[in-house]
Amino acid sequence: MTIYNAPVEDMLFLYEKLRDNKNYNEIERYKEVTTDLVKNILEEAAKINKNLILPLAKSGDENPTVLENGVVRTPPGYKEAYKKFIEDGWTSLSCDPKYGGQGMPKTVSAFFDEMISSSSLSFKLYSELTLGAYNCIHHHASDEIKNKYLPKMVEGKWSGTMCLTEPVCGTDLGMLKSKAIEQSDGTFKITGQKIFITSGDHDLTENIVHLVIARASDSPQGTKGISLFLVPKFIVNQDGSIGPRNGISTGSIETKMGIKGSATCVLNFDDATGYLIGPKNKGLSQMFTMMNLERIVVGIQGLGLSEIAYQNSLNYAKERKQGKSNNNKSKNGSADLIIEHADIRRTLLNMKSIIEGERALCFWLSQQTEVSLYHKDTKIKQDALDMVSLMTPVVKSLFSDMGMEITSDAMQIFGGYGYTKDQGIEQLYRDNRITPIYEGTNSVQAIDLVFRKLVNKNGDIIDKYISMIKSDLDKNSDELKPFIKTLKIYVDKLSSFSNWMKDKIENSRDDANAASNDYLRVLGYVSVGYAWLKVLGVCYKEYSSNKDFYEDKIQTASFYFNRVLPRIDSHYLSATTGSRYIMDFKFN
Amino acid sequence: MTIYNAPVEDMLFLYEKLRDNKNYNEIERYKEVTTDLVKNILEEAAKINKNLILPLAKSGDENPTVLENGVVRTPPGYKEAYKKFIEDGWTSLSCDPKYGGQGMPKTVSAFFDEMISSSSLSFKLYSELTLGAYNCIHHHASDEIKNKYLPKMVEGKWSGTMCLTEPVCGTDLGMLKSKAIEQSDGTFKITGQKIFITSGDHDLTENIVHLVIARASDSPQGTKGISLFLVPKFIVNQDGSIGPRNGISTGSIETKMGIKGSATCVLNFDDATGYLIGPKNKGLSQMFTMMNLERIVVGIQGLGLSEIAYQNSLNYAKERKQGKSNNNKSKNGSADLIIEHADIRRTLLNMKSIIEGERALCFWLSQQTEVSLYHKDTKIKQDALDMVSLMTPVVKSLFSDMGMEITSDAMQIFGGYGYTKDQGIEQLYRDNRITPIYEGTNSVQAIDLVFRKLVNKNGDIIDKYISMIKSDLDKNSDELKPFIKTLKIYVDKLSSFSNWMKDKIENSRDDANAASNDYLRVLGYVSVGYAWLKVLGVCYKEYSSNKDFYEDKIQTASFYFNRVLPRIDSHYLSATTGSRYIMDFKFN
Repeated sequence: MTIYNAPVEDMLFLYEKLRDNKNYNEIERYKEVTTDLVKNILEEAAKINKNLILPLAKSGDENPTVLENGVVRTPPGYKEAYKKFIEDGWTSLSCDPKYGGQGMPKTVSAFFDEMISSSSLSFKLYSELTLGAYNCIHHHASDEIKNKYLPKMVEGKWSGTMCLTEPVCGTDLGMLKSKAIEQSDGTFKITGQKIFITSGDHDLTENIVHLVIARASDSPQGTKGISLFLVPKFIVNQDGSIGPRNGISTGSIETKMGIKGSATCVLNFDDATGYLIGPKNKGLSQMFTMMNLERIVVGIQGLGLSEIAYQNSLNYAKERKQGKSNNNKSKNGSADLIIEHADIRRTLLNMKSIIEGERALCFWLSQQTEVSLYHKDTKIKQDALDMVSLMTPVVKSLFSDMGMEITSDAMQIFGGYGYTKDQGIEQLYRDNRITPIYEGTNSVQAIDLVFRKLVNKNGDIIDKYISMIKSDLDKNSDELKPFIKTLKIYVDKLSSFSNWMKDKIENSRDDANAASNDYLRVLGYVSVGYAWLKVLGVCYKEYSSNKDFYEDKIQTASFYFNRVLPRIDSHYLSATTGSRYIMDFKFN
Repeated sequence: MTIYNAPVEDMLFLYEKLRDNKNYNEIERYKEVTTDLVKNILEEAAKINKNLILPLAKSGDENPTVLENGVVRTPPGYKEAYKKFIEDGWTSLSCDPKYGGQGMPKTVSAFFDEMISSSSLSFKLYSELTLGAYNCIHHHASDEIKNKYLPKMVEGKWSGTMCLTEPVCGTDLGMLKSKAIEQSDGTFKITGQKIFITSGDHDLTENIVHLVIARASDSPQGTKGISLFLVPKFIVNQDGSIGPRNGISTGSIETKMGIKGSATCVLNFDDATGYLIGPKNKGLSQMFTMMNLERIVVGIQGLGLSEIAYQNSLNYAKERKQGKSNNNKSKNGSADLIIEHADIRRTLLNMKSIIEGERALCFWLSQQTEVSLYHKDTKIKQDALDMVSLMTPVVKSLFSDMGMEITSDAMQIFGGYGYTKDQGIEQLYRDNRITPIYEGTNSVQAIDLVFRKLVNKNGDIIDKYISMIKSDLDKNSDELKPFIKTLKIYVDKLSSFSNWMKDKIENSRDDANAASNDYLRVLGYVSVGYAWLKVLGVCYKEYSSNKDFYEDKIQTASFYFNRVLPRIDSHYLSATTGSRYIMDFKFN
């Protein structure tokens, strides 16, 4: 059985000391979200995660969701836990008070996302997609629809889904086949098959609000003919009560490597009644409002699973005795705790330095996200949105990939025990393995980054980002000097790589495509390094006020700068060799 | 359902063109093993793997081995397949003709090991450990024991195990608690618990020959008091027939992440009759005869799983259409096969270049192994053994880690489908995940490499190895020049890293320990590059005789030199930053 204690201290440190974005601090609605309030929330969240949600992880893995007589049943304990979960208001944390939400910013809700990802990713997914659907409806739907659906979704009594993928199209949504036929009353009849629908059906909520992309009969082919529809499992009556069943059935549920407590459904829409959200043929961009926020959350899932893997590894390393360390003092040859071995310590610090750096980066990104949504100044909003767009594929891919590295290293620390089901470690590894795949595979993220995010209609975004880092590097303080020196080397490499990339995007797109994963990693490692630098600034400034905590941070950062940043060299060297020898190859 | 076609052409290429070790070619017993004979064997092996063994993979995963009323039952189909498998003589391939074996060298049997690892690792493990036990008995036991046990093991009617691990000791066998009490007839009574025993019990063979390490009552503590015993499941009568059941019971079998068709047992020995193998208190070194060969085979398992992952990825990439490539010519915007995308091609070539390089390295190592076992000249034998010892941890760790990378990349190519059970891809990933753990975790391999293999009583082994590569690099041919130039850079880095390492082993063992995994990787990548260089030599020399095949090789090698070798830079930079900041860290 795994242990988990939410890293509240680190989260509060970020909330208190790193909430340094001037624009974020100007947002009126968040001025009353004090550190004390956040402390209370995080402490309650820590409790519910440890006591209520963590035990669901094993239950869901051992008793996967099943489809019986057309009905999807969640694993034992999920229903009771979900009831308590929504009673305590956790689904409403970041939602608009207008619809019953608590109005917390992402600087807080992202911490909660991390905690629940650590405790049980499968359980999390039931409310996560609700929030995704909530965001999309909140942004794009009419007031009538908002008033009808959002309060129940905020309350958690109804859940939500995103129905995009079909058998022939995942990445390439232009190929979708689902049809929408307009009716005389302005509603649509939706017909088609959707696959890989997370929480597509289950027994936790009274209704499920599907957001479905489909092609109206008079719409063009390709991505320009995609519209977005709200298609509820049960029709909702005028008074908000539940009406008859809509034309949606669950064809099957997937048997998967992990997240077995989550229902991944094949949904068949058969003349199901749907309501158009926003303008016709603009469905894809509306869906992407939701997808982009969702992609960041997938990154946070990787972070959460990394954290619990680290905690269990550390715990085991302090219990298990095996072999003598180089500094073994015992005369009778008795074994040391494995935490005394340099290689085990290296592995643990690698985990820790990546996790804490990622958390700091994510906190920076949460502030940017809020600015992009709620700042009064349009220009400031847009600039923040550009940063969020740039960083979304990075956080999604880097954090999910690091999640694999870290859960894998945890298995290595546990040795043979890590490979058996008893310890729960191999489950973390299997559960995390979906994160580099869903919401667009990590290669798709890398291509999105390279071809759409570096430069857009607002200008050279990557250049703005690099300039911002460089100007911070110039604000030199003596203690930071060695860190700044190292980071400077890698920012320069990122800069060269970016210039190479911009040239290739214009002149040799295959070179750019083949280098995209490496480029994403380089940008990611530099960004985490930059986040660490901000943390270090606080550490040295406030050192005397909390010496142990800051010393721990400084040493963890040292690891990151010494041993993680140099990964950049290989990516850069390897990727810039071009792609001629790749494109010319004749695969048999 | 996965596909698999054994890469016979590549194997025969190696056997015919790369069997270039002068000392190997002097071994009398293998002079008649012609390419034609090997071709026949490999073609038959390819058939049995495709038709008989491949289907067992899914069966074993879906119906794991169970323990019922103290009896272990293998998955459906295993018994029938095993019967056919031994009838056709596959267990005897590399065994001594004196005991009924076919006497094939490892240059042939390693190919068979690869094939069966591709087809079904779980099924393979039932005969693999028999061969391990066979080797150990063959080297260390008396003629009486050999005559009694080996013929049945060679025939496959009896199987074997290695019983090392106990709850408190895996890596650190000095801590073992199992006891052996000598009886008046010279036999021993063995008592203790052994865990993680692969094929510890099952229903495929008439008897199971356990090789057990235990401590005799008058032996010292620690590793110097460990003896090796043969402990059969059923006592064997004087005439070779099966007698009464011995005092061994199966406590439980592990529920694991993968290789679910393989029975991983807890075995309880309770006054079980055992026979001492070799001299008392020398058990560990005898066991290591077997362990070392076994570790190479674990590397080959990673190679085999990589190969099948590659074949299925390539197949899928040629079937799945998604998105437009940069060179899309279609006017109606229809999607391309994903193999047209640069990033997918890069991933496939990464797999292929690592796999074929590893196979070539392994073939080189097989020749060295045979020289180390059977050459007439003691000095030549010892030199070869030093190379085998050096390369054993490298092959075990690098190939198993690359197996993770390659099976993981295969999942990414399959996208969401890769995460579901239907395609069989996620199973490759789960099955391979044991290979970096068992037979000593990869970190243990790295420490073994650094502290025991670089320099030994015969001298500076790593220096001999690097000198050998350097002298080959100096035999410059024009076509090879660009490859040699790149490899030279990395051999020089390996050389500097080795010198750094030798200094740290003397002066700062924690630095060496913390750098050991990185060092293993660097040595591994250079060794695979060196193997590629030998392949390239043949390709250019014989180019006109088989243009397509050699062109394919040259381009695949180009990928390895351009995009894989540069991984070395980061490992070197990162590892040589020392360990002070790691050892000083205070873990809370």
